[in-house]
This record gives sequence, structure tokens and C-alpha cells, in this order.
Amino acid sequence: MIGRAFAPGHITGFFEICDHSDPRKMGSRGCGIVLDAGITTEVKVGAESFIELNGRREKAETSRWVVNALAAGARVEVRSRIEIPVGCGLGASGAGALSTAFALNRALDLKKSFNELASIAHVAEVENRTGLGSVMGQCHGGVVIRKQPGAIGFGEIDRIPAEALPIFYIAMGAIPTKEVITSTAAKKKINISGKKALRALLREPTFENFMELSKKFAYETELASSRVRDAIEAVEASGGSASMAMIGDTVFAVNIEEAALRKSGFGGVKKACVCHEGVHML
Amino acid sequence: MIGRAFAPGHITGFFEICDHSDPRKMGSRGCGIVLDAGITTEVKVGAESFIELNGRREKAETSRWVVNALAAGARVEVRSRIEIPVGCGLGASGAGALSTAFALNRALDLKKSFNELASIAHVAEVENRTGLGSVMGQCHGGVVIRKQPGAIGFGEIDRIPAEALPIFYIAMGAIPTKEVITSTAAKKKINISGKKALRALLREPTFENFMELSKKFAYETELASSRVRDAIEAVEASGGSASMAMIGDTVFAVNIEEAALRKSGFGGVKKACVCHEGVHML
Repeated sequence: MIGRAFAPGHITGFFEICDHSDPRKMGSRGCGIVLDAGITTEVKVGAESFIELNGRREKAETSRWVVNALAAGARVEVRSRIEIPVGCGLGASGAGALSTAFALNRALDLKKSFNELASIAHVAEVENRTGLGSVMGQCHGGVVIRKQPGAIGFGEIDRIPAEALPIFYIAMGAIPTKEVITSTAAKKKINISGKKALRALLREPTFENFMELSKKFAYETELASSRVRDAIEAVEASGGSASMAMIGDTVFAVNIEEAALRKSGFGGVKKACVCHEGVHML
Repeated sequence: MIGRAFAPGHITGFFEICDHSDPRKMGSRGCGIVLDAGITTEVKVGAESFIELNGRREKAETSRWVVNALAAGARVEVRSRIEIPVGCGLGASGAGALSTAFALNRALDLKKSFNELASIAHVAEVENRTGLGSVMGQCHGGVVIRKQPGAIGFGEIDRIPAEALPIFYIAMGAIPTKEVITSTAAKKKINISGKKALRALLREPTFENFMELSKKFAYETELASSRVRDAIEAVEASGGSASMAMIGDTVFAVNIEEAALRKSGFGGVKKACVCHEGVHML
């Protein structure tokens, strides 16, 4: 049997790291946008086991973790088509893990529930320190507020009612999530600023407020590089609003013409839309 | 300002009625399918207040309840375009209430969160006895298992990982939900059978099992009329599977050719697909 699943990309605007000895309960609070660009994974039982990302065999640690957790030694060919940059704060590792889990479930007829599969993807992220909360967003669609940390069934969410707005982004470089979330100094600033942002967002859960609070978070935590700050200011000078995708050297922007963004000269501009579908079978 | 929102239709396959003095905690356990056909509602502030369903002014009790709860006396013109039959177990009242709540939030700039709006729609259903659980499904998309009753933020769900399967349905007539869920005799049978079905589904959360358990529920509770049973058997004779949409004199079927269903002569066949988007802004 062949299993095929799609998991959307996800941009976190701000977050707070929440440690826990149980990886299903570890995660983050915060808020992010689910995107209609993501990862499509096809799984079939094969003669050997491998993971191919856009046609090239790769280590793909987080997806590999999911395969090890679910396939129980079966040989599976995993092929992922990735529409989003990797390591740039677009939730690629979470989308890879989720789409792999859902496709494997069908290919191996595992009969797992949605929450069981999503929980395995969340734990894969946490164990590999590639993410803390994207998977929760990617299970739902829309603009997802993570009120309590953890995998689906453990964490708690709300959402900002939002249209399928176009989101432009410029990925200027990768930042290893692991380095940031395991640094004590960074974590302290993140948690002070992230907690404050969440409280303010819950008082006024609008998309405009989310953009404003995300920018404040990027500056306060000093996670925004100088070129990220320059790009944010260029967007604002054109009348739009922007912030940094957590965690990558990536700017995302709304309410701006694509042409204006291209002219700003910060690199290749990509477009996606707010997506109301979470991970699902194809 | 104009607000526009879409809420999907929803077919419950089986359920258990869960009473509670707090309407946010009252609801049902069970499982149902979210459909890509539903209700689109547009709201704008106007000179007078009315609700129009497909161009005709109607009482629309459940949506009216939502307007009263949210509009605080403001005059609003509410126009809903309905793609699903009303009163036939397709979740029309829930979709009307949800899309009205989300559109109103934008039109009146209420700045409510997704969960706040969805909770109001759930309470509107419960108070008017037009439904007990559809709203929870319609918030999520997919094939939604309601493990614990109540509004979003109170209830608890899981899902069956499912493709965007085509679902055919034949609405043969309306059954007032209120009459069924307030009848002591019906309720007893519903709760015995529904509880058993949920337990069996959680042991094997697959779409095939959902169809099988839904049919068993429809027969055991004697909610299926003789023509519903005849239609289910006709579908099975053609190699498909079918059950009854709760609560309506409606049969839904999968894994069958539309032509075979039309030939069966039970009335107009409509098609929708499993939808992975819950209620959202347009």
C-alpha cells in the first residue's frame, strides 16, 4: 500500500520555551501562521529503507526518528517533496515528521489515530531539538495560539480568526533551532519576552496585534540579525508589517505589494497564504 | 466593515448525549465527517437587523441566538448562502451559527478569539436543541472523534486520518433534532449504542470501522427509517458502504459509483468530499 500525506509549513512569530521531563508535555507557548506551502510525503514498503528529500537521499533526523518509532523494522521508502526552505523558521522539520507519520500509517496499515501520529511527530521534534511547537500549529491550520505547551492531546490552543492572507517571506539564511533553544542566555530573554507577548495577544487576538507583538519579540530577544531588522524596516517604510520567522534568518511580511518587496533587494521573495488545513492524507 | 466566513457541513455517524447544566460542557460524544459543502455567511452593519437564508428572510433561531449574544443591539444584515439541506443531519444549524459568529466578529470588529466564537455557536445549538456536537467537528475539519463533550476548550477530540474521500448523500426528509434528543426512550437507546460504538472506534480509528459502527448504531437505536435501511442495503449490494446522517432522514454512502446510487431510485444524490478545513474567514 502507498500512503501520501501533506503537512503545511508554519511560521512562529513569538514563543516561550516550556521544559518538561515528558517530551509529550515539553514544548512552547506562542503563536504562528500555518502556510499552504509545505511538505508532501509518499511512503511505500520497499526492498531497503531510505528518506529522499526532493529526490536526494538525506539523513533527515527528525523524519528518521518517526520512521524508527513507527515502522517496527519494516523497510520503507520515504520520499518527501519540500516546497519550503529548510532551517529557516518555516517549520520544515515538523512538516517532514508529520507528513512521514501520516503516510507511514497508511502504507503500513497501522490504524493509529490522528493524535497518536501527531504526538509522535511532536516528540520527534522535541527529542531532536528541531522544534518545540510547530507541529501543534501544523495539526490545526489558521493562525494558532499555543496557550499550553505539548503535543496534541496535551497542549492547548486557541486561534486568531484570519482570512487566507498572502504572506511573503525572504529566507536569508538558516539558524539551527537547537543552538538557540539550548542556550541559557537566549532562553532567558525568549521566555521573558514570549510570556509577555502571549499575555498581550490573548487580550486582543487579532492578526495585526500578532504582527506587532512578533516584531517586538524579535527585537527584545535580539534574535533578529541586523539584516532582518533592515528588511523589517523596509517593509514598514512601504506601509506593510513584518517580523522574523522563529527560528531562521527569515523575514515574513503582510499588507505589502510583492513588487515593493522585490525592489527592497533583500533576496528572493516567496509567497504563501494562511492555510486553514492542518496535516492531512492525500 | 463586511465580514465573510465559511463553515463546513458535518454528518454525525453515531453519538451519545451528554447532559450538563453548563451548556458549554453539555454536548455529545461520537464521530462525524466534515464536508466541503456548507454555509457562507456575510454580515454587514445595516439600517435594520435581519437574517436571510438563500435570499429569503427567515427566523433562523440558532443563528439569531448568536446575533443576540454578539451584536449587543447593533443592527446587522446577515446573509447566508446554504449549500446543504436543512434539518436533514448535515449540520446546517451549526454551520449557520458558526459562520454567523465569525462574520459578525469581523463586521463589528469584536476582536474575539476562534474559541470564543466557536463556543458561542456551540451554546446556541445546545440552547436551541438543534445540535449537540456538530460545531466541535466543524471547528476542525476531517473525520472528527468527539471523545469528550462540549464546546471547543471544554470538549476533547481526536481524528481519523482520512483522505478527501467523496461522500454521497440522499436527503429523504427532515427529522427535528429536538424531538429525538429530548425523548427519554430514544435517549436511552442512543446512549447505550453510542457509548459502545465510541469505545470500538477508539480501539481501531479507521474510516471503514467508522462506517460499520455508524450503521450498527443507526439500526440498534431504531433511528433508521425503513427507507433509510432499504437505501443502506442497496448501497451495500453495489459494493459500497452506507449509514444514516444523525439526525435526519438521510443516507450517506462511500465507495460507490454515483451512477449506481442514482439508479437505486431513492431520490436526488448529492456529492461532497471530506474537508480538512474547519470554519474560517473568507
